[in-house]
Amino acid sequence: MMITMYGFGKVTPQVVGITRDLRVLWALEECELPHQVNGLDDFAGELHSADYLAINPFGKVPAIDHDGVIIFESGAIVIYLAEQSGRLLPTSESERAKALQWTFAALDTVEPPMTQIAVIDLFEADAEWAKLRRPALVEMAKNYLAVLEDVLISKRYLLGDQFTYPDILMVAALSQIQHTNLLDEFPNVTSYLTRCHDRPAWHKCLDAYNRRLAA
Amino acid sequence: MMITMYGFGKVTPQVVGITRDLRVLWALEECELPHQVNGLDDFAGELHSADYLAINPFGKVPAIDHDGVIIFESGAIVIYLAEQSGRLLPTSESERAKALQWTFAALDTVEPPMTQIAVIDLFEADAEWAKLRRPALVEMAKNYLAVLEDVLISKRYLLGDQFTYPDILMVAALSQIQHTNLLDEFPNVTSYLTRCHDRPAWHKCLDAYNRRLAA
Repeated sequence: MMITMYGFGKVTPQVVGITRDLRVLWALEECELPHQVNGLDDFAGELHSADYLAINPFGKVPAIDHDGVIIFESGAIVIYLAEQSGRLLPTSESERAKALQWTFAALDTVEPPMTQIAVIDLFEADAEWAKLRRPALVEMAKNYLAVLEDVLISKRYLLGDQFTYPDILMVAALSQIQHTNLLDEFPNVTSYLTRCHDRPAWHKCLDAYNRRLAA
Repeated sequence: MMITMYGFGKVTPQVVGITRDLRVLWALEECELPHQVNGLDDFAGELHSADYLAINPFGKVPAIDHDGVIIFESGAIVIYLAEQSGRLLPTSESERAKALQWTFAALDTVEPPMTQIAVIDLFEADAEWAKLRRPALVEMAKNYLAVLEDVLISKRYLLGDQFTYPDILMVAALSQIQHTNLLDEFPNVTSYLTRCHDRPAWHKCLDAYNRRLAA
């Protein structure tokens, strides 16, 4: 099988390292799935070309084309790749439910304040609304980090000893605030991030991503 | 099997009708799964009691306990209930991937600006940041609504003729802005919402929810 991954070819420098195509690239490497990358130039409007809108009508990356099956939304793609390859998945039915739980906890609970902080710091730092709003977002982010800090006291990864697909999504959510010092107060979260980022598949996908975006 | 659903028993009136436990209650009715509701009193701090934090450490509802399997996050629970019952699911593997795609499109693309508009209108209407920020969120929401308007030209539901679990999540995302007139410009989206809300399972769960919250 061959997978084409639609990701960024050129993008504004502020978001290099936290774009959502990295989640899929990481999963592809972890699952050792053969793939090619179609890097779209955001400056040239390629995310809103008629050809790409036929793939993802929202004009966002990532998306994949797997032998004609087209899927967008990074959360959906990461789950799909895990299921296709049988990798990054827990074995029992109840643990599979927990993998879904942590996926949505990452994307729908933890990530929203993190993303809003990133939007403010990277794009709207001088806007009046952003200055007024940021403290409440930081408080929300810290509350969620405190929960994760406790969850990770006795676990290497979200589901225990095994690295599974929700770890990719939680790490990606937390990476939205890596430009801040918010993680410093949370040593378990910080060592979890380090542990996940030490994985060879992460280094492999990040190196290729950085080379592509620097070209 | 018996499912206990942890939802709101008492909650601030502004959010009645858009709380996330409704998504799970709707899925339970659609799947005809026997269940009981444990309604937590938000004013009395029951979402942050030690007992409930042992179920969901983030102190949010909904969560379910299905014969000892505990799952939180409404997105995860809705998928779990569909899989357990074999209802609300498409049959082919590629359509199942599409169901995941639309789930994440609902929760991670469409819903974030809708939720931020709801937070502003329901809780922060007089805040300066909110007045300054709202127009950009409305523009983002309209862009996504315009995409859905096109998607729904030729489809009754997100996956075609069959109502599937991502429709519950998309309707819930769109319901966040039902207090505004933003949907008026989008007749396909509006008739999709009406079509979904006409379902007997929705009426049944909403009636029970309203009775519980009025008690």
